[in-house]
Amino acid sequence: MSQLLQSWLASANTGTTDFPLQNLPYGVFSTPSQAALRVGVAIGDQVLDLAALEAAGLLTPGNGTAVFSQPSINAFVALGRPVWQATRARLTALLAADGDAALRDNATLRAQALVPLADATLHLPVQVPGYTDFYSSKEHATNVGTMFRDPANALLPNWLEIPIGYNGRASSVVVSGTEIHRPNGQIKLPDQPRPIFDACRKLDFELETGFIVGRETALGDTLDVEAAEAAIFGMVLLNDWSARDLQQWEYVPLGPFNAKTFGTSISPWVVTMEALEPFRVAGPEQTPQPVSYLQQQGKHAFDIELEVLLQAETDTQATTICRTNFRHMYWSMAQQFAHHTVSGCNVRVGDLMGSGTISGPTPDSFGSLLELTWNGKNPLTLAGGAKRTFIEDGDTVVMAGWCQGDGYRVGFGEVSGKILPAKAR
Amino acid sequence: MSQLLQSWLASANTGTTDFPLQNLPYGVFSTPSQAALRVGVAIGDQVLDLAALEAAGLLTPGNGTAVFSQPSINAFVALGRPVWQATRARLTALLAADGDAALRDNATLRAQALVPLADATLHLPVQVPGYTDFYSSKEHATNVGTMFRDPANALLPNWLEIPIGYNGRASSVVVSGTEIHRPNGQIKLPDQPRPIFDACRKLDFELETGFIVGRETALGDTLDVEAAEAAIFGMVLLNDWSARDLQQWEYVPLGPFNAKTFGTSISPWVVTMEALEPFRVAGPEQTPQPVSYLQQQGKHAFDIELEVLLQAETDTQATTICRTNFRHMYWSMAQQFAHHTVSGCNVRVGDLMGSGTISGPTPDSFGSLLELTWNGKNPLTLAGGAKRTFIEDGDTVVMAGWCQGDGYRVGFGEVSGKILPAKAR
Repeated sequence: MSQLLQSWLASANTGTTDFPLQNLPYGVFSTPSQAALRVGVAIGDQVLDLAALEAAGLLTPGNGTAVFSQPSINAFVALGRPVWQATRARLTALLAADGDAALRDNATLRAQALVPLADATLHLPVQVPGYTDFYSSKEHATNVGTMFRDPANALLPNWLEIPIGYNGRASSVVVSGTEIHRPNGQIKLPDQPRPIFDACRKLDFELETGFIVGRETALGDTLDVEAAEAAIFGMVLLNDWSARDLQQWEYVPLGPFNAKTFGTSISPWVVTMEALEPFRVAGPEQTPQPVSYLQQQGKHAFDIELEVLLQAETDTQATTICRTNFRHMYWSMAQQFAHHTVSGCNVRVGDLMGSGTISGPTPDSFGSLLELTWNGKNPLTLAGGAKRTFIEDGDTVVMAGWCQGDGYRVGFGEVSGKILPAKAR
Repeated sequence: MSQLLQSWLASANTGTTDFPLQNLPYGVFSTPSQAALRVGVAIGDQVLDLAALEAAGLLTPGNGTAVFSQPSINAFVALGRPVWQATRARLTALLAADGDAALRDNATLRAQALVPLADATLHLPVQVPGYTDFYSSKEHATNVGTMFRDPANALLPNWLEIPIGYNGRASSVVVSGTEIHRPNGQIKLPDQPRPIFDACRKLDFELETGFIVGRETALGDTLDVEAAEAAIFGMVLLNDWSARDLQQWEYVPLGPFNAKTFGTSISPWVVTMEALEPFRVAGPEQTPQPVSYLQQQGKHAFDIELEVLLQAETDTQATTICRTNFRHMYWSMAQQFAHHTVSGCNVRVGDLMGSGTISGPTPDSFGSLLELTWNGKNPLTLAGGAKRTFIEDGDTVVMAGWCQGDGYRVGFGEVSGKILPAKAR
């Protein structure tokens, strides 16, 4: 076994940190002493300020243009994969115990460029021009179809042929930690002839990941599955907050709208595909074999452990309510992305594409309260004794994800969000 | 009757021009001699270069910040309604025959600031952060429901309660004149068990208008119908290109996706709500009375004549295939917009919100080929003798719209688009 590369920064070498030298996820941060938003990578318990390294001349990905003293990672991402790879190699060298001494041995620069994570405010890492959400977990689609349609024909006829997706609302994509008001909207109660206007009564999360598009295409152009996979910059955790009662009334025939536009939370760190490469695995077998433009050979799923925790306002600790894995997803990210462009729809750097709810095969691996409580029939009991069918005011939902390596983990950190009461109607 | 205000620019006073002094729509243009994109208003057969007027000190909406030497109208729109109104008053004075002489009597500035429309290249007027498309024509929804579901229950139960809408794809919103490739995608033929991958065989247009959002809201905030109406900057013509066969296979349960993401065309001129104010009329009666947040008194529809022309590549003239009016729309723009924010979804300056297909009560007023040919059953005959069920390669679709005043019209110009053959699969 090859020895694991160590950093001169001890907190990166604990084996349990989400942010070892093998990860180097990108985010955007500010500090009390320096309010300007800038790009950093997480390393151990620190943020490495890439704008500071760029100003010091240690990183020059933009070839004279500053790409890290920016309020999003988009300018860096737009430089393309060769630059992503060269920057990763350079950062690895600068942070490795036996690497380049330029940062390691420069106490002034270290003091300037390393910020404790605890002191940093993390912002939305990506300016998101477009947000698309897919529906690619067979288990999730089957659960929903069983509950709301026909258990004997739970999957709709198109589901095994198309990576079903819909356009989401980009304006309300927010960073982890953003508090979300319970939405108001129309609810159709079964015993009343007309809808009422009220606060959502079936507020839910959806455990998802999302990928960040790393290149632009022109209108009319398409990406095949290989080109699509190569154009993915990295991944985030994503909570697709969902108002089930609003959704059930509004979604026919044009899909979910207000039920999902009131907030979509993503993790502050974008884990690159380079960091995820060692965790590539084969996805589920696809039967029938997809239509030509979706056919893929080899390993295109990723072994990412996922969990969801729920904490009531009065609880002293969070309760783990779901454990699952991204590898269960039926459609790969490359297939989703290729499908997105097959009609000629253009994509832009920073576009966010959600996986859809990630549910595993067992009841404790379902990625939403809708499934975990089977539409409220089977309440969950939290650590403090409270029961939950759906999310209540003051509840905080936390999602975490990581790839478990041999002696290290490549982690996503977390995406969390607290639900505030609905505003007055 | 009050005398109609005339311009010193004769082409603005013809009575038939789309762009009299009463209109003053905003767009973005460039010229062969000056490639930089900038904001202008159409007046008669000219574009008035607002960046030139701003540089000359005749317009100062940004109070020191240049808002017209920009590639979109967004910076100007963001200044808000008082500035929109003051700028309109100033432009009216500068262009009126008996108004301010600063432009009228300055030959050098006139030569610099007035560009013949024929010499200008028109660009997408708005940078569109988010695109939403509604479905607010009762006639259209009834036609579609009759064709594809149950004639006896053509309208779905939620339609009379909710201004149904869905998130569209903002990246593929393009300006009039942009050529669009016929999309490829999955088509499910009734006599085959699995979908084929082929070029769309049922390519259609949808006659729509769109409104441009003129202010930003915060996540969690809502706009009531009055505030929503006051936040609309102006309107455009919109062609929601639609691939009916792709749509039919993909749209359950999350709505249309690839069938509508390959291109959405808008007119280059944004007609302001101030220009449309004289054409305000009462909309259709709403029964049942909408839920509280959608209730509205007074006149909130607009009398906008609309027509669609189709021209085959071999035809020497276009054929008018639809004549209708925007006033038929069941849900008002204010109701659509208020509904959009009722869950707390935030909006941004430049957001585009489409009306949905505008169909009138008679068969010649239907706003799509799907309805005009009743899903291909009743082909149309063009002026050159060719038959059409759906759009063929080389066809150009032109939509025009105008408000007819007494001795003048406030016109939208047109939105046109030619369909190119599908790219190789």
